[in-house]
Amino acid sequence: MKYALPVTRAESFPDWYQAVVAEADLAEESGVRGCMIIRPWGYGIWQRMQELLDRRFRETGHENCYFPLLIPLSFIAKEAEHVEGFAKEMAVVTHHRLKMIDGALKPDPEARLEEPLVVRPTSETVIGAAFQRWIRSHRDLPLLLNQWANVVRWEMRPRLFLRTVEFLWQEGHTAHATAEEARQETLRMLEIYRAFAEDALAMPVVAGEKPPHERFPGAESTFSIEAMMQDGKALQAGTAHYLGTNFSRAQHIRFQTEQGELAYAHTTSWGVTTRLVGGVVMTHGDDDGLRLPPILAPRQIVLVPIVRDRPEDASVLEYCESLAAQLGRGAALGEPIRALADRKLGRPVDKRWGWIKRGVPIVCEVGARDVAAGSVTFVRRDRARRGEKLDFASLARAEFLERAPALLAEVQSALHDDARERLRAGIRTDLATLAAVEEYFRESDDADAYRGWVQVPWARPEGAALDAVEERLKALKLTIRVAPLPQESAAGERCVFTGAPARERILLARAY
Amino acid sequence: MKYALPVTRAESFPDWYQAVVAEADLAEESGVRGCMIIRPWGYGIWQRMQELLDRRFRETGHENCYFPLLIPLSFIAKEAEHVEGFAKEMAVVTHHRLKMIDGALKPDPEARLEEPLVVRPTSETVIGAAFQRWIRSHRDLPLLLNQWANVVRWEMRPRLFLRTVEFLWQEGHTAHATAEEARQETLRMLEIYRAFAEDALAMPVVAGEKPPHERFPGAESTFSIEAMMQDGKALQAGTAHYLGTNFSRAQHIRFQTEQGELAYAHTTSWGVTTRLVGGVVMTHGDDDGLRLPPILAPRQIVLVPIVRDRPEDASVLEYCESLAAQLGRGAALGEPIRALADRKLGRPVDKRWGWIKRGVPIVCEVGARDVAAGSVTFVRRDRARRGEKLDFASLARAEFLERAPALLAEVQSALHDDARERLRAGIRTDLATLAAVEEYFRESDDADAYRGWVQVPWARPEGAALDAVEERLKALKLTIRVAPLPQESAAGERCVFTGAPARERILLARAY
Repeated sequence: MKYALPVTRAESFPDWYQAVVAEADLAEESGVRGCMIIRPWGYGIWQRMQELLDRRFRETGHENCYFPLLIPLSFIAKEAEHVEGFAKEMAVVTHHRLKMIDGALKPDPEARLEEPLVVRPTSETVIGAAFQRWIRSHRDLPLLLNQWANVVRWEMRPRLFLRTVEFLWQEGHTAHATAEEARQETLRMLEIYRAFAEDALAMPVVAGEKPPHERFPGAESTFSIEAMMQDGKALQAGTAHYLGTNFSRAQHIRFQTEQGELAYAHTTSWGVTTRLVGGVVMTHGDDDGLRLPPILAPRQIVLVPIVRDRPEDASVLEYCESLAAQLGRGAALGEPIRALADRKLGRPVDKRWGWIKRGVPIVCEVGARDVAAGSVTFVRRDRARRGEKLDFASLARAEFLERAPALLAEVQSALHDDARERLRAGIRTDLATLAAVEEYFRESDDADAYRGWVQVPWARPEGAALDAVEERLKALKLTIRVAPLPQESAAGERCVFTGAPARERILLARAY
Repeated sequence: MKYALPVTRAESFPDWYQAVVAEADLAEESGVRGCMIIRPWGYGIWQRMQELLDRRFRETGHENCYFPLLIPLSFIAKEAEHVEGFAKEMAVVTHHRLKMIDGALKPDPEARLEEPLVVRPTSETVIGAAFQRWIRSHRDLPLLLNQWANVVRWEMRPRLFLRTVEFLWQEGHTAHATAEEARQETLRMLEIYRAFAEDALAMPVVAGEKPPHERFPGAESTFSIEAMMQDGKALQAGTAHYLGTNFSRAQHIRFQTEQGELAYAHTTSWGVTTRLVGGVVMTHGDDDGLRLPPILAPRQIVLVPIVRDRPEDASVLEYCESLAAQLGRGAALGEPIRALADRKLGRPVDKRWGWIKRGVPIVCEVGARDVAAGSVTFVRRDRARRGEKLDFASLARAEFLERAPALLAEVQSALHDDARERLRAGIRTDLATLAAVEEYFRESDDADAYRGWVQVPWARPEGAALDAVEERLKALKLTIRVAPLPQESAAGERCVFTGAPARERILLARAY
């Protein structure tokens, strides 16, 4: 069977991923090592994510602000003193001028900065310094801020969206009077991420807590949502950290309590990034390209006019335009429908496949015959094929207009149902021993075979015992993803690693 | 008379500006040289600007995308070869790792980049390289892109919003098949900026073309909108450049025409920045702080509950919440009303003045008496004072709800009318000779005296004659802002500088 992409998932999942990203107009290499160009369709998806998340952040009392890109080395040095496992791969600005020297443009030696500046890898240090100035009294708490920004981390093996040197994200930073409130905030944001992933991205996730060695450096506890990609690997899709008073102690974020005493604030931070776009690709894509859940799609319905340089072209274009306008006056999934009549030059068949590859939920083709019959011919992208062919359906115009909101809702839930079933089926809970787990993940037989996640009982070992577990997992290229929430009782079970009585269950998986 | 700010405009306009920015919660110094922290209220204003402009960009067929922050030095060097007047003050990244060396965190000498990277001062070079890849045929044109991003320019004398080392902006970049189309695009975007400034920001501007020596380096023509601040100075509030084929020649942006020939694309670029926030401050602020046009205000109506730790507090809070919710279901100026019941802890009088200083168009105070009477007491921020006191009005709740949309529309147009009258009155058109212009701007008498703009006939001198004009203007700290559009005939008039027959009129002003 001939698909729209040059490579199928079965042939090579990594190559297929690259093909979707390229052919769906999502992103491309920029010529700057590890930095991508996010193309209009990819950026449109990210902008929808921003819109939908920003609304949820505001509704829960968070305010947006903006902190500097460049952070003095002294801020970073201070954090490095306090934070174990502090990462040092970052872009360092050392000069503030270029100069022509011997006919070549170079950093001007006379414009060397007294103190180097770091391009922010995250903003805890600079936001903490502001919190220290802004927080005086319990009346200033809680302080609930969020920032949409770009960050830079010097990744050695970049991949478009999934791991890039520069990426876009939001970082929430909050301060609270009590540990209890800060913990609640952390879980509230985790729940916002979980619901957003499920409801908007149609991407089922497991929310849970990370084991100690997978925590954000400096955090008391780290939570994440984990999504299962179609190759069985896990993608960490959002994180929320309860930072205790670790950062506020390092940065002197103190406040006067109602009782007049000085106390350290309890802080949190939480974020999602443009890697979510990669997650959507690997959750919903098929061998014809991307499939987008309608809530997320920048365009939900695209009308391709079949024009052939004939007199009836004008009426076809007019039909498309008026249909798009009518659709736009309707609503689906709680918002006005985003419809487009694609008037660009080009062969209609290329344009159709372009939108199929971009994952538009409903792609319509309108020819002179549709105009004459007053009908609309369309493909639902979630189930585009019947046998070898695109599965076109046709409805009378009025009926299509009436059905469009329900069709979009159906696509949204069909994609979610498929992915949820895949997640359910992809988690093995029947591997009772470490030997069985090792057998499942052993690569000697078939390195490309599908391997999902494994859920096993866990006793929360610490110290040397935890190190030993890590070592073992590393050999299998596995990581502990999370202990899922809400926690189920593991009473009576034994930790597969230590044999000690289990305290919870954890998920093991290979991960992006 | 006692005002809310520690300093009035008359006492010191620059100090007053700093006071508004600080007291209205707009921005503050970050501790990073020249980089500001944009605080929630300031960021909310910028986010409104983004929303409103982004809608206009999309409606005119532009698509958003995102290009890398870091640009290889070779890209910049290539531009430097082609562009006269190329600015070299930029942040240069030379290392990608920090390392502890003798107990101090330093750039790791082993992680020196082979090729330094520049933090983007603007994206022409990296976007041009992409255009070169993306544009093949006339079918790919016009290519209409926009990017929302942060940029860094090493400013020596930074001022919050007006001139900062890092700022936020949008940069539009487009490519066209013909000069005519590219010129039209440039003027179309200028008109979008003009209408946005007038209609949304209530900030009257003069749109026009810059003289040759004020053009963007590499541009064929540069247009801008110029706003008049209350001190009479000009603020360049948005620019649009027709770049001809200068950039496409340097970057090999060619396409196959319908006739099958290879031709260079004609490109444009256009942008506005966070300095617009500073422009709004200096256009509408008064001695009590900021005044915001309702279309721009993140919150249009704020309700301050007068609570005093008494049993009736609950009913006051409930009254405020339900009123805010009811307002939110209504619409004003084409959008849902943005109302807030301010439940934060703190003294009501401080909260009231906080919102007055932030410039909220309608500030309400609701006490137990209002609840009992079913009324709303409020101040219109555009005319907050009657004599020494705040000019509170009171309406029955139902009437207030009914009147709110009209009140907001009135505030919007009142601010615009005031500013428009100030602009009109601030332009001298009666100074017929250079001596008269010099007399007007001479500082010997009173350096702080108000000096507005001067409109004079202009013969478009070039070469040495233009250099002489520049020299003369420089001595007066003046610049030519623009030749206003639409051009009026200057037939029969003589250029004040050269005495040659005038070809148009230009505006002279001191500028930010």
